[in-house]
Amino acid sequence: MPPLPSDPAGLTIAQASSAIRGGELSPVELAQAHLARIERLNPRLNAYVLVTAERALAEARAAEAEIASRGRRGPMHGVPFALKDLYDTAGIVTAGGTKVLAERVPERDATVTRRLREAGAVLLGKTNTHEAAYGVTTDNPHFGRTHNPWSAERIPGGSSGGSGAAVAARMAPMAMGTDTGGSIRDPATLNGVVGLKPTFGRVSKAGVLPLSWRNDHAGPLTHTVEDTAIVLEAIAGYDPDDAATVPVPVPSYTGQLGGDVRALRVGVARAFFFDHLHDGVRAALEEAINVVRGLGCAVRDVRVDGMEAGAGYLHHMVLADAQEIYAPFLPERLGDFGPDVAAHLATPPPDGVALARAMRGADEVSAELRRTLEGVDALITPTLPIPAPRFGEDVVAYGGVEEPTLFALSRCTIPFNLSGLPALSVPCGFTAEGLPVGMQIVARPFDEATALRLGHAYQQATQWHEATPPGVG
Amino acid sequence: MPPLPSDPAGLTIAQASSAIRGGELSPVELAQAHLARIERLNPRLNAYVLVTAERALAEARAAEAEIASRGRRGPMHGVPFALKDLYDTAGIVTAGGTKVLAERVPERDATVTRRLREAGAVLLGKTNTHEAAYGVTTDNPHFGRTHNPWSAERIPGGSSGGSGAAVAARMAPMAMGTDTGGSIRDPATLNGVVGLKPTFGRVSKAGVLPLSWRNDHAGPLTHTVEDTAIVLEAIAGYDPDDAATVPVPVPSYTGQLGGDVRALRVGVARAFFFDHLHDGVRAALEEAINVVRGLGCAVRDVRVDGMEAGAGYLHHMVLADAQEIYAPFLPERLGDFGPDVAAHLATPPPDGVALARAMRGADEVSAELRRTLEGVDALITPTLPIPAPRFGEDVVAYGGVEEPTLFALSRCTIPFNLSGLPALSVPCGFTAEGLPVGMQIVARPFDEATALRLGHAYQQATQWHEATPPGVG
Repeated sequence: MPPLPSDPAGLTIAQASSAIRGGELSPVELAQAHLARIERLNPRLNAYVLVTAERALAEARAAEAEIASRGRRGPMHGVPFALKDLYDTAGIVTAGGTKVLAERVPERDATVTRRLREAGAVLLGKTNTHEAAYGVTTDNPHFGRTHNPWSAERIPGGSSGGSGAAVAARMAPMAMGTDTGGSIRDPATLNGVVGLKPTFGRVSKAGVLPLSWRNDHAGPLTHTVEDTAIVLEAIAGYDPDDAATVPVPVPSYTGQLGGDVRALRVGVARAFFFDHLHDGVRAALEEAINVVRGLGCAVRDVRVDGMEAGAGYLHHMVLADAQEIYAPFLPERLGDFGPDVAAHLATPPPDGVALARAMRGADEVSAELRRTLEGVDALITPTLPIPAPRFGEDVVAYGGVEEPTLFALSRCTIPFNLSGLPALSVPCGFTAEGLPVGMQIVARPFDEATALRLGHAYQQATQWHEATPPGVG
Repeated sequence: MPPLPSDPAGLTIAQASSAIRGGELSPVELAQAHLARIERLNPRLNAYVLVTAERALAEARAAEAEIASRGRRGPMHGVPFALKDLYDTAGIVTAGGTKVLAERVPERDATVTRRLREAGAVLLGKTNTHEAAYGVTTDNPHFGRTHNPWSAERIPGGSSGGSGAAVAARMAPMAMGTDTGGSIRDPATLNGVVGLKPTFGRVSKAGVLPLSWRNDHAGPLTHTVEDTAIVLEAIAGYDPDDAATVPVPVPSYTGQLGGDVRALRVGVARAFFFDHLHDGVRAALEEAINVVRGLGCAVRDVRVDGMEAGAGYLHHMVLADAQEIYAPFLPERLGDFGPDVAAHLATPPPDGVALARAMRGADEVSAELRRTLEGVDALITPTLPIPAPRFGEDVVAYGGVEEPTLFALSRCTIPFNLSGLPALSVPCGFTAEGLPVGMQIVARPFDEATALRLGHAYQQATQWHEATPPGVG
């Protein structure tokens, strides 16, 4: 093992975990290193909305003592993490980025919170989110904007923008996000980190503030695919409190990471996903596809149809669900939401028949993608067609189109919310402006293992995930 | 093995399959026996809307030849079956009991149709359904009413009433049904046969005419639980064409049937499910529970809350989905539907927010049931609170309440559509009028094996499933 870096906050989970096991690193030291970075960087990045410093140190001390006396519970024991402020934390405010829930203190942990605690992980705090998780800028009217560590005048993406920025700036080795139309993969890409939207039903959403029941997913943001595999093993599995979870056995994701990828058939989904791309994104993707080909995978173009309609289906579902969820506050407190979310909540919702049509349409998108995945083991697409826009840039022009930023930043991700397929975003290069680009790897339902194996092999062959944003070193 | 009965149509699948394997029974003879019964009984029962006699005989001859030359494909090889007229059959009309689809000839088989054909099973024909599968009487305005073999002036239940009557009258050893609010378990009970609504996602619905996407389930009706296990093994599993299916491995259901049930913890769901019952139904259920206790299971009462709201949630979802599905025919052809279905299709649908609330409510019902099933291995409830009503009896009075027949005949079944949990109905006695009663056995998601094991043990200890309706012997 190479010598530890001077700042343990630079370690991945795998590295920190190994150092803790070897007695070279104390969980207290590790938590302190992250808290020190938070103290230094959070005032300008605003990735965290709440830092639970004292509690984190107490948990780290408890982990240290337990490891010393009884040994490690597992690879997350003593490892710090952050939670998007949608995950319920018993006794700690969970506001979902809204004013109407600003005083809300849950009595119980979310299932994911509890599983991470049971694994011995150390909670550093809660990260900023686009208000109500309903948007992609994380320019939150109540908790402030989170800045992109790669370029402060640019958005960190969203809705899990705080989680993306926290990981990118090494203020946590892992932060949980949620993803309704891309909200994990989008900030993962724009901040140059890894993000996984697991299969629908793979990770419990019980105790996670909802936006759209059928489309919401819970998943982690990390630096490496290996770390994502470690986290997924800790949080995945059936949960009676979440009706969407399914008792598919949780495999050893880490155990399969080293598996041979040369037998994998990889489809590049050209139509729709590559139709309009920023030039720098296209160049990075083509290079990434060459790297995947160089790994020995059988790479070929595949055609999927009917993806265009997906955004409309999702829009209908989210509109109805969000208005139902926030109904107790409407219309009286509409003015307590920021203008964009207030506009969504005041839009006439689809009627039931239109909503039923959207749900059936989503099933058609899903079946088309599942059929395509019968012929290949994984699909590759860009995660996002553009790099991080500037704050206030509500319309973007790229690759021959001009459209609302919200559309551009969900175009390539939405099909995998509608279909529930596992989708992993890995950093795959930079644009000429120095902004990160992401490659999306999609696999069959509950086959996260294949996406992780391919993503890990890609990271073994590249260094994009090791880059550090300027000014946060 | 006991000598074959004089009429092979009296055999279960397991018995017929064993006789075919042993060379004592020819698939042609078996098909002929069923076709002869259909010819004799269908004119008065009207269980089949279409009999594919010539094709069935050709398939039986092909099965016979293949078995003689290459051996059996499996236990369904050469075994006849029927399909509810919602299952697509290539080249054969599939109308879903509606006039608007009366000329519809699918180009492809449904996935279940295909899997049964691949297993070598022999299609006898298509069975009657309540129009559009939207009701429980199977009093079809276009295809006529199916009569209950136990009492011709009574309904066979529905919507899979033709399948229930066909199996009860031994016009097929198995018929496929569909279940949106109880439409497999309801006719199974009222006709004195076994019906299984598998876990949502366990059996593909691709190519099955829909009624309500989230609530529809495909499953078989048979005489014995053992036969249900045989059929489920043939049809279960992931299907890329159905976005709801999940790659949970399909176990050997038949291989587990003989397993010990003495270790099972069985909860009797008293509240709600036993609140209002016809006296004869209550007496049969209490006796059945004693039998289950006598099997050595640890039986105790359990409490589940919040079931009352379920019917309203389902009603909202079905209303919106049905109107979306039949939108191409509305309003122009509203008059081509029977009065009850036309009334549903003309009812103002819920708005999107109300529909979203219904779906969230369904998840709450589901989580409550799943939590209850953490403490027990299976739940027992009555399948239906009443025996078969008479045609035209639109309101029923029983156990201190008076309500629409549709409500009574879905009250105890709906929670398991909303929750997607596997629910098996087994015959458990008769009322004083000689009408069959059913016990519902519910298990954890994708744990059909436990429900089947318990149901099989119950059938080994009882003879209710061997009774034959008077007049069809």
